[in-house]
Amino acid sequence: MSTHDEIDGTSPGAGEHAVRGGVTGPGGFRASGVAAGIKQGSSADLALVVNDGPRREAAGLFTTNKVKAAPVLWSEQVLRERRLHAVVLNSGGANACTGPEGFQDTHATAEKVAEELGIGAIDVAVCSTGLIGQRLPMDAVRSGVPVAVAGLADSERAATDAATAVLTTDTGPKQAFREHGAGFSVGGMVKGAGMIAPNLATMLAVVTTDAVVDGDTLNAALRQAAGTTFERLDVDGGTSTNDTVLLLSSGASGVAPEAGELTELLTETCNDLVRQLQYDAEGATKAVDITVRGTLRESDAVHLARLVAEDNLVCTALFGSDPNWGRIAMAVGRSDVEMDAHRMEIAANGVTLYSEGTPVVDRSEVDLSGREIEIVIDLGLGEHETTVLTTDLSHGYVEENSAYSS
Amino acid sequence: MSTHDEIDGTSPGAGEHAVRGGVTGPGGFRASGVAAGIKQGSSADLALVVNDGPRREAAGLFTTNKVKAAPVLWSEQVLRERRLHAVVLNSGGANACTGPEGFQDTHATAEKVAEELGIGAIDVAVCSTGLIGQRLPMDAVRSGVPVAVAGLADSERAATDAATAVLTTDTGPKQAFREHGAGFSVGGMVKGAGMIAPNLATMLAVVTTDAVVDGDTLNAALRQAAGTTFERLDVDGGTSTNDTVLLLSSGASGVAPEAGELTELLTETCNDLVRQLQYDAEGATKAVDITVRGTLRESDAVHLARLVAEDNLVCTALFGSDPNWGRIAMAVGRSDVEMDAHRMEIAANGVTLYSEGTPVVDRSEVDLSGREIEIVIDLGLGEHETTVLTTDLSHGYVEENSAYSS
Repeated sequence: MSTHDEIDGTSPGAGEHAVRGGVTGPGGFRASGVAAGIKQGSSADLALVVNDGPRREAAGLFTTNKVKAAPVLWSEQVLRERRLHAVVLNSGGANACTGPEGFQDTHATAEKVAEELGIGAIDVAVCSTGLIGQRLPMDAVRSGVPVAVAGLADSERAATDAATAVLTTDTGPKQAFREHGAGFSVGGMVKGAGMIAPNLATMLAVVTTDAVVDGDTLNAALRQAAGTTFERLDVDGGTSTNDTVLLLSSGASGVAPEAGELTELLTETCNDLVRQLQYDAEGATKAVDITVRGTLRESDAVHLARLVAEDNLVCTALFGSDPNWGRIAMAVGRSDVEMDAHRMEIAANGVTLYSEGTPVVDRSEVDLSGREIEIVIDLGLGEHETTVLTTDLSHGYVEENSAYSS
Repeated sequence: MSTHDEIDGTSPGAGEHAVRGGVTGPGGFRASGVAAGIKQGSSADLALVVNDGPRREAAGLFTTNKVKAAPVLWSEQVLRERRLHAVVLNSGGANACTGPEGFQDTHATAEKVAEELGIGAIDVAVCSTGLIGQRLPMDAVRSGVPVAVAGLADSERAATDAATAVLTTDTGPKQAFREHGAGFSVGGMVKGAGMIAPNLATMLAVVTTDAVVDGDTLNAALRQAAGTTFERLDVDGGTSTNDTVLLLSSGASGVAPEAGELTELLTETCNDLVRQLQYDAEGATKAVDITVRGTLRESDAVHLARLVAEDNLVCTALFGSDPNWGRIAMAVGRSDVEMDAHRMEIAANGVTLYSEGTPVVDRSEVDLSGREIEIVIDLGLGEHETTVLTTDLSHGYVEENSAYSS
């Protein structure tokens, strides 16, 4: 049984470190996280999430990068059956660019988990994160798996242990949980400190639900939810070699929601996880929402919002709390998207700074000193709109990324 | 008369601060740089370059950004005649996003220069650099122009004054000069600390030649030379609202070179200027050459080299002198370019790190501690190749760009 009645922090003993729930929130799931010795030192580095059923539909999304890590190649294959019994995740090594031997290591990891659980390897997905180009210490993995299996539990602590074991440069575990009035729930965990940061900040997410749902519906729900959550976070421009989002359903609630209800609860949960990624992004001192509206196509809005989110000059200005809309105008103007600079409007934290080709108010009238910043760019051409979440570009980002692996 | 016999530093009085020549190197050109009070304080902020002929063919390249500053709109118009008598440049204000009034300011600046020189405004190009979205102090511009005209000279000092007056965050003037055995020469000046940095690092270049050359040939030579020089520098991803490259020919040498000879000397001069931009880029501690070869199309090589050059994770790793080829593989894999990760090879400073899908040597065998870094990525698919020049992403970059305008 899950313990999700404690998760919203209303339980007496929740204290100041109240957990927000996670993959064991929905019924039918157990998890664990252990220190297997994959990383140097004694930190946790191996996590398991097991679906005890009764159903085992699953769906997955994987990196679009052409350089795919061995665990991504394996898990993509496994997910073709739209069915998963377990997911094994490790930090301490991405197992990317490691050749056929690396793929054998992934396969061996799945085999070991399957053996310990008494299931088939084809029902075990594998996720890895860490440095590219180094083989995993397979002795550590092999000896760690039985310990992780022995530690499986449906408790909040078990979920947090799993969410902790996958961390790299993240400052803490990231979990979410949502219950629907109809009696089903969605929980999840995620790690990552950027959508793109292959050596240290691969995004791995495992989301669970106890809803009764067929594979096609589950797959469609994941794609729809990810489209407005995971795919709208852009810290530094792309996807790593290892990015993976997995959704597992146990059917343990006995409740079969309508597709729309499931998608909505899933989107809320994923949105919660993405906000946690945004706030914990490498070196970030600002959580920045870039909204582009008034475009002729939604794809134009997404393209422009990403262009602004990825612009180093915009992001360093925001680090300095500087409402430097000129840099925003420049970033937008770089694109191929149809636009008219004289119809464009730019606003920051609710104050319009640029309109009809000229400045509107002095920049000193906008206060960007707080943690949250909202930028709105209106092209004034159409009805489409999107919001991309990003962060500032800080000394902390440069520090973490220049010093991490040296 | 020009003084280019002194320029290579062989003149007795050159001393340790030997100038490398500039726009007054070729015969037929005068220049000046003065403090007009456009910037706060007493630094130089207004430059003039005047072509005394006998010929006045000219060509220009302008930003592809859709948000174009008033001086770009004006100068594009002026250049349609492929003829220029003078160029006036100012730092202390980009005159971008300033509406119809800003365009009138540019026009008034050209008119004032024309009036002082006794020529037509249509023969005067205008270039501006500085903060976007603020009107220029036109009183300062109007009172500065006569002073600049009075100071016009064909000396090295005059060229250096002009090259200095256009600087923003640059640490010093950037000039180049090349002579051809056939008796003509090319000189130039450039400012910029990034291809994209609209508030502070617009790239402005003025290049002069005393060759006798018709407008079409001049235009073709500029496009060809820029294609392998200015357009192959990518510090942080794009083009500003004000980027401008102007080429003026005086015919004063009386020598009419073959098109290929002119293009070659022009390319050498532009390459010299671009290297100076690379070394003086904001906060840069490394000069990084990214070569991509073995692609099916040249455009693929350019696209991939730019993707790597713009990748924050690659550039922060290089700041840390870390041969983190995994980040390079990830950056390349993000593109839509046809590739096979197993055929790709990655080398740094001559050492192959990744080949046939696996690491080749340990990263510790590559030394990136020096200022110059060469990255070579071979896709192993075709015959095309290009090199893009970039820099690392350092604390200095974040510092300059977060603190500059606040």
